Amino acid sequence: MHDQFIVDPIQGGAGTSANMNANEVIANRAIELIGGKKGNYSIVHPNDHVNMSQSTNDVFPTVGKLVVLKLLPKAISELQRLYNALNLKSLEFDNIIKMGRTQLQDAVPIRLGQSFHAYASMIKRDIERLIKVKDEMLTLNIGATAIGTSINVSLNYLNNITNNLKKVTGLNVIQADDLIDSTQNLDCFVLVSSILKTCAVNLSKMANDLRLLSSGPKTGIGEISLPSKQNGSSIMPGKINPVIPEVVSQVSFNIIGNDFTITMAAEAGQLELNAFEPILFYNLFESIETLKNATATFVDNCIIGITANKERCEKLLNESVGIVTALCPYIGYKKSADIAKKALTTGIPVRKLVLNEKILTSKQLEEVLNPISMTKIAKVSQYTTDIYAI
Amino acid sequence: MHDQFIVDPIQGGAGTSANMNANEVIANRAIELIGGKKGNYSIVHPNDHVNMSQSTNDVFPTVGKLVVLKLLPKAISELQRLYNALNLKSLEFDNIIKMGRTQLQDAVPIRLGQSFHAYASMIKRDIERLIKVKDEMLTLNIGATAIGTSINVSLNYLNNITNNLKKVTGLNVIQADDLIDSTQNLDCFVLVSSILKTCAVNLSKMANDLRLLSSGPKTGIGEISLPSKQNGSSIMPGKINPVIPEVVSQVSFNIIGNDFTITMAAEAGQLELNAFEPILFYNLFESIETLKNATATFVDNCIIGITANKERCEKLLNESVGIVTALCPYIGYKKSADIAKKALTTGIPVRKLVLNEKILTSKQLEEVLNPISMTKIAKVSQYTTDIYAI
Amino acid sequence: MHDQFIVDPIQGGAGTSANMNANEVIANRAIELIGGKKGNYSIVHPNDHVNMSQSTNDVFPTVGKLVVLKLLPKAISELQRLYNALNLKSLEFDNIIKMGRTQLQDAVPIRLGQSFHAYASMIKRDIERLIKVKDEMLTLNIGATAIGTSINVSLNYLNNITNNLKKVTGLNVIQADDLIDSTQNLDCFVLVSSILKTCAVNLSKMANDLRLLSSGPKTGIGEISLPSKQNGSSIMPGKINPVIPEVVSQVSFNIIGNDFTITMAAEAGQLELNAFEPILFYNLFESIETLKNATATFVDNCIIGITANKERCEKLLNESVGIVTALCPYIGYKKSADIAKKALTTGIPVRKLVLNEKILTSKQLEEVLNPISMTKIAKVSQYTTDIYAI
Amino acid sequence: MHDQFIVDPIQGGAGTSANMNANEVIANRAIELIGGKKGNYSIVHPNDHVNMSQSTNDVFPTVGKLVVLKLLPKAISELQRLYNALNLKSLEFDNIIKMGRTQLQDAVPIRLGQSFHAYASMIKRDIERLIKVKDEMLTLNIGATAIGTSINVSLNYLNNITNNLKKVTGLNVIQADDLIDSTQNLDCFVLVSSILKTCAVNLSKMANDLRLLSSGPKTGIGEISLPSKQNGSSIMPGKINPVIPEVVSQVSFNIIGNDFTITMAAEAGQLELNAFEPILFYNLFESIETLKNATATFVDNCIIGITANKERCEKLLNESVGIVTALCPYIGYKKSADIAKKALTTGIPVRKLVLNEKILTSKQLEEVLNPISMTKIAKVSQYTTDIYAI
Repeated sequence: MHDQFIVDPIQGGAGTSANMNANEVIANRAIELIGGKKGNYSIVHPNDHVNMSQSTNDVFPTVGKLVVLKLLPKAISELQRLYNALNLKSLEFDNIIKMGRTQLQDAVPIRLGQSFHAYASMIKRDIERLIKVKDEMLTLNIGATAIGTSINVSLNYLNNITNNLKKVTGLNVIQADDLIDSTQNLDCFVLVSSILKTCAVNLSKMANDLRLLSSGPKTGIGEISLPSKQNGSSIMPGKINPVIPEVVSQVSFNIIGNDFTITMAAEAGQLELNAFEPILFYNLFESIETLKNATATFVDNCIIGITANKERCEKLLNESVGIVTALCPYIGYKKSADIAKKALTTGIPVRKLVLNEKILTSKQLEEVLNPISMTKIAKVSQYTTDIYAI
Repeated sequence: MHDQFIVDPIQGGAGTSANMNANEVIANRAIELIGGKKGNYSIVHPNDHVNMSQSTNDVFPTVGKLVVLKLLPKAISELQRLYNALNLKSLEFDNIIKMGRTQLQDAVPIRLGQSFHAYASMIKRDIERLIKVKDEMLTLNIGATAIGTSINVSLNYLNNITNNLKKVTGLNVIQADDLIDSTQNLDCFVLVSSILKTCAVNLSKMANDLRLLSSGPKTGIGEISLPSKQNGSSIMPGKINPVIPEVVSQVSFNIIGNDFTITMAAEAGQLELNAFEPILFYNLFESIETLKNATATFVDNCIIGITANKERCEKLLNESVGIVTALCPYIGYKKSADIAKKALTTGIPVRKLVLNEKILTSKQLEEVLNPISMTKIAKVSQYTTDIYAI
Repeated sequence: MHDQFIVDPIQGGAGTSANMNANEVIANRAIELIGGKKGNYSIVHPNDHVNMSQSTNDVFPTVGKLVVLKLLPKAISELQRLYNALNLKSLEFDNIIKMGRTQLQDAVPIRLGQSFHAYASMIKRDIERLIKVKDEMLTLNIGATAIGTSINVSLNYLNNITNNLKKVTGLNVIQADDLIDSTQNLDCFVLVSSILKTCAVNLSKMANDLRLLSSGPKTGIGEISLPSKQNGSSIMPGKINPVIPEVVSQVSFNIIGNDFTITMAAEAGQLELNAFEPILFYNLFESIETLKNATATFVDNCIIGITANKERCEKLLNESVGIVTALCPYIGYKKSADIAKKALTTGIPVRKLVLNEKILTSKQLEEVLNPISMTKIAKVSQYTTDIYAI
Repeated sequence: MHDQFIVDPIQGGAGTSANMNANEVIANRAIELIGGKKGNYSIVHPNDHVNMSQSTNDVFPTVGKLVVLKLLPKAISELQRLYNALNLKSLEFDNIIKMGRTQLQDAVPIRLGQSFHAYASMIKRDIERLIKVKDEMLTLNIGATAIGTSINVSLNYLNNITNNLKKVTGLNVIQADDLIDSTQNLDCFVLVSSILKTCAVNLSKMANDLRLLSSGPKTGIGEISLPSKQNGSSIMPGKINPVIPEVVSQVSFNIIGNDFTITMAAEAGQLELNAFEPILFYNLFESIETLKNATATFVDNCIIGITANKERCEKLLNESVGIVTALCPYIGYKKSADIAKKALTTGIPVRKLVLNEKILTSKQLEEVLNPISMTKIAKVSQYTTDIYAI
């Protein structure tokens, strides 16, 4: 019986094949339950009975929304686990001082915990947006039948179907005010996809950062180590690769590409129906599922196992001249720039130059050029780190 | 002096050129007001004074958000005018009965007013999403300076800058809880662009519908006429083209393409900064501006002048067999399909066949096969039509 | 044994999992053939023997290219069948005169055969581009090993592997001149995807045209009929939908979205390797396969069964005023426009007005306002229609 | 008079506004030359004379192609300068040995000159593709008039216009065999844009590599230095940013986004015309122009001024364990991996371990673990470096 459900997900007819297939399966199952012989549609007819008061044009997008509502919370839950894991890392790494980088150039000090807190803050926005966007899926066009005018619907069905769906699914679904609009326009799915895409942008950025920070082990930045998951190379012995962040970026690229397919499908609707729902759902479901899976493996096989290379962080920081920025309020931009250049060309550390040239006393120096203090000015240093209960 | 502001919008350096340029202009203007000679930076220095407690990395994205907050309401206002215009058309066309089409095939009757109400309902969602997404722009990273740690900021500045911006702009701006995150991640702009993109999808779909419905004048659908705005052809006399919907679709395609550029720019951020804000802003501002302009011309030069070709609508409806759908609850899907095929092959109208074959009495017929009634089952027929006060 | 091949196509590690998995399968198979016990890698070792002179970094992209070279000809072959089918329709419909439309507005006459010839001409370009782009896949980096410097390669392998592949595959593969470039850059795959995308643009445009031309049956254009393939609606009896062109458009949207995933994956390469080949191949293979399948069903289930509604074509043409364009060279643009407007507002046919107002004699009229002649000026009327031997 | 040309580039009407505007300007200029008074269209009429034998539908795309043919060679020329500059750097850096990186992890040695040669090889493909794709622009639909049937064309015009354009432009333009196809389908522009996009992918990848290799100066890879072009920061003194590669990446993102707009515009064509040429040209011209400008600044302000930090390269290489790969053919993958791990955990250099554990004699060591030799196995070491004459 299961095989009967197998219809190519990329189908013409705006889902009619899938709907009629489901109607037939339901009819046959009902016939069986009643005690009839499968295929004897005089008992229960796929069109006249199962599809009564219904049309593919309201059933198919309604089911699409219910699927999204079923899949999204699982993806959100994984993102919450990611948020928690990042926050725990943020606490764990709160005392690791390192150099911050803008445009990949040495900038000013940051604590590694702050970096992970920033990732957590970013993911929190994604979670909140995904929770909010679920609302877009709650408005159903069930009862709209063919084009939204509810032709052939029984009023009993029209007035009760949403409440019944509510009971069965436990979801606060409602009937669209304007069933015609709700039948022909797919912008709500574009929005869900766009929020997923925005999340993918953040995930891929973070994944790339982790690749950068763990680059090495000897000729890169090497401030953190990712847990090693498999031999990294079939030719280079001992090589460990950032395979999980690479999965995350690839899934992100795919979600972004899917968003464009979804955008084109939604734009191509004509008059009373958009016939391109099948490809839209095919892509949207894949986006949610792969986002969920990639996030899960990101947490379990990467984030929670990240370790900080504290000494490396401090060594790089001490060799750099970025702390010179903290001199600006005391000696101005131009003079600070001169110190920076001198430090870089001579190799003499900034601190030494400042003392040698009597710019600050050693006591002032301790206060002004303390990298840890440099990172504690903003209120970000006082943020609290909350954890989702999942 | 104005010329000093001219810096290529596509610039490297994450906006440093633009910020330094502005700092210089501000310094010189301040020097002038003080009575000094322009360029005498010992009086007011672009870096040490104007840029005090600031960095390009907090000023540039902050200004970007303020620009979006300034531009968006104008676009929203035009969309509200569009919504109003569509609603008025919905009332005007409420008694025009016509054939609805799914997959460009004759389906079941709809009133033209319902079609325009559907467009209005769709645009209302866009308006509400755009109003909501403005909140994403209210969280500023001003005070973050270089990387979000607020290095070199005076506490006085840090604690008061957002309130001062609030007073000056009248906007409920707030300071980000996590300034480090807020400095390096641009997902909020991706979201704004995505909402614009979703709106563009809807606008283009509607524009295409209007081109379909006004196709002809003789060999197309021709159910509506768009106001003629210019000679449509340099070679075909008398030809009038749907130039305004064509502008709307083209602007939509451009906004969708811009969204991809914005997505890539946001994804490409590395560590403590995203250096690709200039191209992001270049595209985002264009998207908002062109959406606003296209919507304005859509309202003024197209929507408000649309007229319905009532007779054409009724003629097409009466020639079609789509009303056969209303027979299903009485005679079942299969028998109704037979009638439909017979009507199509013989050319005998459905109503006549139904009487001839004694399927319904003429009294029943009047009730069951009344196209107007077919469109009044759903609550969509009772919707109210509200108007934005602008 | 087959199960050993199952590795998630979206994997980190630039294909290392897939390559190592293949190496293990090959090693075990070799061990079996030698008579050893599977898993006894002292006989044949996956790394030291099977992977000898190889690296994932040269094997994986090489295999990717060979797969493309295997899949592409099948897609091309389907496009050639499409070309042939369109050309046959072009001949079949050569005497069907109808109205041409620009911007969906009545323009000037065209023969339906010309329309189909235009589609054929368009598809021919796609075929030629796909044939040409295969060359981009012939340049392999096999022998490059880890980063293109051929470390650990035996010279015997390096100098003979391409020739051996040539023999085994029958493909004119060559070794890249610059193996380092060939190992790190994936632009050749972007190009293949772009050509597929360009073809998708054409297919979707044609599919949309066919939906437009077959719209109706009563309230649309209705100049052609598509073969009916399934009941079009679960609620509307007798409705036939353009399901095959809808599949074609959906596949096209998907290919276009895939192209952007592929573009992002290629752009994201860093230094000596692009780690994002798995998602690139996942999308590229899907694009080729679905293009092939969609084209096959397009030919077999749609194009070859299209019929022309000759009378409808002529009726619409005669009711329109577009033939007025042919008057321009005789009476100028302005006067022609006046005639057009008069015909449209009064309903009097253009031909009658021309005679009434003594603009042309009836003999001139026959010559000047003959719609068939209007379509035979360009050399397009003398084109030959060739057929691919497949 | 110049102002007359100013028509919004995003216009409805498939370019009719632009064409009619040009016709009017040409008419007035002709009237002036004849000695008449501007605006006296009885002398030269914009429609009846200037537009004679023409239609917007053939003139506008023809002009679009000629513009592309005028702009493209300039972009190609800049890419050739880039190719030359990269090749010169390749020679300059041929003796700089450094660590190669895959997935940002230490891999095996490479010479810096090889890296730049790889960029040159990559750009060469872009150049060759752009030169080839120009051919797609040579096939014009001039003479097609309204829909490709050449209605109202004089045979004299039809048969000579392409030759005349050839003479005036010096370009080998030809008339399309199928003028109907050539008038309605814009795939040739999609192809040009796709080739530009593919080039943008390569440019952005290279730009990102240069940012990675020049990251630092102290806490990044720092193997090369980019010429410093401006103060990098308004707050961080002495900071130099990779502003030019950042411009290149941003332009690339924009070209990729433009490609999507162009793709959608081309896909949206309906029947005998694509009305969306204006937005297509707006984006395509921007893509070519910005590619040209970005490439020019890339060469002049970045590539030619790049310097190698030889000592840094060698220091990083010597500290790494990647050379262990060269041991595989002698002691197998597993044992090599053990050495690698031991070297990483103990900090003892690979060479020392190999001697200590008597894996190789010191003579063998010199031969087997010589990083320079490791880079000279492939024929890439024998490539010649050609230079475009520009």
